[in-house]
Amino acid sequence: MHGSFHLCGKGLKLHDRREIESLGLQAHLSRGQFRTVIGVVGEEVKVDPEHLKAITGVEQVLPIMKPYKLASREFHKDDSVIDIPCPKNGSVKVGGTHCLAIAGPCAAEEEAMVHQLAREVKAAGASVLRGGAYKPRTSPYSFQGHGEEALKWLRDAGRENNMPVITEVMDTRHVAVIERYTDIFQIGARNMQNFNLLFEVGKTRKPVVLKRGMAASIQEWLMSAEYVLSQGNRQVILCERGIKTFETALRYTLDVSSVPVVKVASHLPVIVDPSHAAGDRQFVPALARAGIAAGADGIMVECHDCPSKAMCDGPQALLPDTFAGLMKDLHAMARVLGRQFNM
Amino acid sequence: MHGSFHLCGKGLKLHDRREIESLGLQAHLSRGQFRTVIGVVGEEVKVDPEHLKAITGVEQVLPIMKPYKLASREFHKDDSVIDIPCPKNGSVKVGGTHCLAIAGPCAAEEEAMVHQLAREVKAAGASVLRGGAYKPRTSPYSFQGHGEEALKWLRDAGRENNMPVITEVMDTRHVAVIERYTDIFQIGARNMQNFNLLFEVGKTRKPVVLKRGMAASIQEWLMSAEYVLSQGNRQVILCERGIKTFETALRYTLDVSSVPVVKVASHLPVIVDPSHAAGDRQFVPALARAGIAAGADGIMVECHDCPSKAMCDGPQALLPDTFAGLMKDLHAMARVLGRQFNM
Amino acid sequence: MHGSFHLCGKGLKLHDRREIESLGLQAHLSRGQFRTVIGVVGEEVKVDPEHLKAITGVEQVLPIMKPYKLASREFHKDDSVIDIPCPKNGSVKVGGTHCLAIAGPCAAEEEAMVHQLAREVKAAGASVLRGGAYKPRTSPYSFQGHGEEALKWLRDAGRENNMPVITEVMDTRHVAVIERYTDIFQIGARNMQNFNLLFEVGKTRKPVVLKRGMAASIQEWLMSAEYVLSQGNRQVILCERGIKTFETALRYTLDVSSVPVVKVASHLPVIVDPSHAAGDRQFVPALARAGIAAGADGIMVECHDCPSKAMCDGPQALLPDTFAGLMKDLHAMARVLGRQFNM
Amino acid sequence: MHGSFHLCGKGLKLHDRREIESLGLQAHLSRGQFRTVIGVVGEEVKVDPEHLKAITGVEQVLPIMKPYKLASREFHKDDSVIDIPCPKNGSVKVGGTHCLAIAGPCAAEEEAMVHQLAREVKAAGASVLRGGAYKPRTSPYSFQGHGEEALKWLRDAGRENNMPVITEVMDTRHVAVIERYTDIFQIGARNMQNFNLLFEVGKTRKPVVLKRGMAASIQEWLMSAEYVLSQGNRQVILCERGIKTFETALRYTLDVSSVPVVKVASHLPVIVDPSHAAGDRQFVPALARAGIAAGADGIMVECHDCPSKAMCDGPQALLPDTFAGLMKDLHAMARVLGRQFNM
Repeated sequence: MHGSFHLCGKGLKLHDRREIESLGLQAHLSRGQFRTVIGVVGEEVKVDPEHLKAITGVEQVLPIMKPYKLASREFHKDDSVIDIPCPKNGSVKVGGTHCLAIAGPCAAEEEAMVHQLAREVKAAGASVLRGGAYKPRTSPYSFQGHGEEALKWLRDAGRENNMPVITEVMDTRHVAVIERYTDIFQIGARNMQNFNLLFEVGKTRKPVVLKRGMAASIQEWLMSAEYVLSQGNRQVILCERGIKTFETALRYTLDVSSVPVVKVASHLPVIVDPSHAAGDRQFVPALARAGIAAGADGIMVECHDCPSKAMCDGPQALLPDTFAGLMKDLHAMARVLGRQFNM
Repeated sequence: MHGSFHLCGKGLKLHDRREIESLGLQAHLSRGQFRTVIGVVGEEVKVDPEHLKAITGVEQVLPIMKPYKLASREFHKDDSVIDIPCPKNGSVKVGGTHCLAIAGPCAAEEEAMVHQLAREVKAAGASVLRGGAYKPRTSPYSFQGHGEEALKWLRDAGRENNMPVITEVMDTRHVAVIERYTDIFQIGARNMQNFNLLFEVGKTRKPVVLKRGMAASIQEWLMSAEYVLSQGNRQVILCERGIKTFETALRYTLDVSSVPVVKVASHLPVIVDPSHAAGDRQFVPALARAGIAAGADGIMVECHDCPSKAMCDGPQALLPDTFAGLMKDLHAMARVLGRQFNM
Repeated sequence: MHGSFHLCGKGLKLHDRREIESLGLQAHLSRGQFRTVIGVVGEEVKVDPEHLKAITGVEQVLPIMKPYKLASREFHKDDSVIDIPCPKNGSVKVGGTHCLAIAGPCAAEEEAMVHQLAREVKAAGASVLRGGAYKPRTSPYSFQGHGEEALKWLRDAGRENNMPVITEVMDTRHVAVIERYTDIFQIGARNMQNFNLLFEVGKTRKPVVLKRGMAASIQEWLMSAEYVLSQGNRQVILCERGIKTFETALRYTLDVSSVPVVKVASHLPVIVDPSHAAGDRQFVPALARAGIAAGADGIMVECHDCPSKAMCDGPQALLPDTFAGLMKDLHAMARVLGRQFNM
Repeated sequence: MHGSFHLCGKGLKLHDRREIESLGLQAHLSRGQFRTVIGVVGEEVKVDPEHLKAITGVEQVLPIMKPYKLASREFHKDDSVIDIPCPKNGSVKVGGTHCLAIAGPCAAEEEAMVHQLAREVKAAGASVLRGGAYKPRTSPYSFQGHGEEALKWLRDAGRENNMPVITEVMDTRHVAVIERYTDIFQIGARNMQNFNLLFEVGKTRKPVVLKRGMAASIQEWLMSAEYVLSQGNRQVILCERGIKTFETALRYTLDVSSVPVVKVASHLPVIVDPSHAAGDRQFVPALARAGIAAGADGIMVECHDCPSKAMCDGPQALLPDTFAGLMKDLHAMARVLGRQFNM
């Protein structure tokens, strides 16, 4: 942890400053009318706010700098633009002025459907194909995904349509096999703080879409990005997918404001997933438009040709036609903001 | 309360149905493998879900119909369009294809500033003038507003610029004086469930902007609208202004998804207030754009010529120039969705 | 607002300090490696954190002192003990080592039931009688209370049993009539930030039970107490009654941890209302016990002789017998902590 | 998924019932005045509520039975009592009338401190020793635990004091090594929905303490327990450790009401962790007492001899003496409820 803090407390004394300095840190004492404040500045790893809070007399530890570094806008002034090679030729970009549309089924259910949907979402304007092979399901009795078989279907459908493929990784033991077949790792909301998994995808050199946990603060989300970045993998794409609040009208509350907040705090691209946020297809287009209008670098949506037969999350899947209509609106909205989707 | 419910429980018996029917309600018993279910349908006011839950053997009371009526889309199929007369001539509309921009200072601080800001926000594209005369402040030691004096400044500035004026009402004892000077009542988030106040503004015939409480579910919000509507005042404009969540990066979390949810459930117009949601001007434009992109019928924003001198909420006030730039983006976004702002 | 703050920002300069000092405030500049920090200390009302945040270069405003004063433990070191006279003779106490049990029906439905319940809850161990005359209901179509008629029933039942009476006040126009009939004002959760109502009860000299709003932070709650205290009424009893969270198993989430947090921050007594928190009688005893175990100064619970016929909140009302059993447990638990209930 | 549901919608027709029955499910049609309702009952796995929601005309899918089975009180009427063998002789029990105190350092920092703390917490009344070997840290730059080395220290300290040992498992690849050294697996809040990890510990035959995720509903928590139970491991102990809410006074909000709610829904023991909930030692005793008063089957707390030197979570660690004092209160409170702690 690199850091810079203020310690506040009525009972802080000069010898507390000395105790802090004996740890190799710089401390500046400033005695106020009501409180004494000690400013502390230290190198990475050495200052732990928890340590400081445990010093006698300290009532508050006020962080002055952010606890993440590589993910911060201060570390990297310009927007990061991530370039993802396509299977046959060319590449797609996300970040800066480039917006990205990722679409496909929730789960890769069978070979033919994956191929058909890939063609359809490509035609409608998606440039990356999504699909689940290992599915995180709330119930142990629900369909858990087709595993490596599904990875092959996705790879083939991606090649056929010259689309990079993204799939979710849930287990450190699956990183190698998923890396073999796909182009982008997805870390799901439930694994945002599965720290060993973050380290493992950080050791690869493939882009990582890091979904925000449903109860993760923006700072915790950026700290999780820092886990990946700290291993040398600089290709992190953040994805807002809804948080838990008291409101139950939709499955989650899409925190659209996280988009501009992330843009100020970090250089990393950030996209939105309106499908999981809404859990109901009738609200997906409005949330997708809101995300792009707020400055998001793209969207990730679920599509299905026959939602009532989908093996998971059918109610939130868009029909390919609806998705095509939505993409027209998003193109127009991106243009208002001086941006454009990959074509 | 009109209503229709299902009662579920293992121990429900035939005589429970009879007990329900003796209350003049229709009950349909259906015995399942695991549970017995009684469907109950009744006229208004007669069925209280709390009553039903108190019957022995009832484990769940599942509402089948919504608890509000006049606010519901089922009661009124088409979008309500509310027409607000301007002081000199003409009117402004909100709802249907009409979008509305409301702008002005947080508080009406002094006569000259109110006039100047009114001119500036009008020039920038606002068609209704906002300004606070009675301010709800968290601290009893903060500035509480200039009262009736400020109402006069607002009325005069509205007349000069042919803009209807909106101001907040916090106390049943102020309804009459505010009605005398202004064109639209604003019910603030903290008073969304000040039920007597809702009754009082419901007895007037002036439009009411009803802000959502920071912990109010969409259903509770519509129930509060029902309070106003039930008194014969059909001119309710809902306003999403951010809810409380665990995320503290901004003051509140703007629940953009409430916009399309309200649009399905109700015929009433719904606008967004990005200023109070963000609490920080740098995030206001992104949230305003997100609201319109999600289908909102307008925005309400705070502006100030010199935010660092503002008597309240300075950090969230836009400079008039920034507001003018924002309005250009919003016009373009509304057009994408086949809508237009009042000019 | 009295206050003391730190302003942090990369771009803070010496002339910013001078600007602050020109406002009559003391400012201490401290230039760090990454950030410059200005400590600001000022008299009451003069320092507004919003003002400070609006200064160019300021990225963070870190409060060092609490924004409330009269409610703070720093202002009044010892626990406040509030003494409430009984109608015939003696008094009941709350705070310090004294625990208080308040019980009665949700609404005063008819004269006979109020008298009977008063006798029953008194016999079971309650020393204050609660009952609603003006009811805040989510729906305009629900029973709204019997008004002044009910106030008389409550007063008479209180006299008969030598119990002080508490009832909710929802409207500034009702303060006078309620003051005439009852001994304690209750401010409900939905009115915790009805600031004019707080001022009005602050002008009386009767104790006020101030419920925490379902989305109010502990600090906002204490600021609302400050409203009452600032008018000279020092008899404020805080009441935790559950907050809104994502969890929907019960109506609200009783924030038991608010009890010890308030005890550190403030000298005011704090009680818990497990009935409204749970919304379901089977969970009321566990929550009441948890509150007392956490250090609360008492409980407020709803009782009814025939919950399935109750005009409001029947599902959460305890039968008087269950309440009597609960009181036995609470007496034992209070003793473990060196406290005792009024007898 | 086994299940039983009601489908509601205005447009439901007879042929919809046939469609449902063609899937091998039983359907009961009941036409109401406003809505048609179809009751659906099916065997395990066959009924997926998402599927049903995707049927045309269905507006609501209302679950009638719980989605978990092995974890439910309906499946197993009596409280499960879990018996954990001690290293030398005897065993400790949790559930039914048995309460359990688990204590120890946040992280096993070095061999001597682990041994000393084990002796101290045993003397103070703990019967299981906790300690972290693999630590989930928000920052990649924080101390991550001593791994297998720490597991040995814990095993040896447990043997010396005849205490079973619990440690956290974060990675499917660590299950085998942790199983070798310790007696109880802890699944942390951040891994509550790390489904593969749940399957892996479910395949062992050692008890599992399953912490509730900070945004997990009680139902999701029980579904995660079902993952473990479904693999044949019936020794699951639930642990409430605080949820995320808007309140930031403490690190998390301990949801004490989850204790009685779990007790009604499930037969599994449930304990509370006041240390992580509070994040501040001064509030730990009050929350521990509240948990036991609410009916919890035990507590898990962090202790340290010198909190200001602790490598993680120092501010929340109790001194062994304070812990001993707390245990006296808890013994007395458990007795009030007819329960007793392991001695």
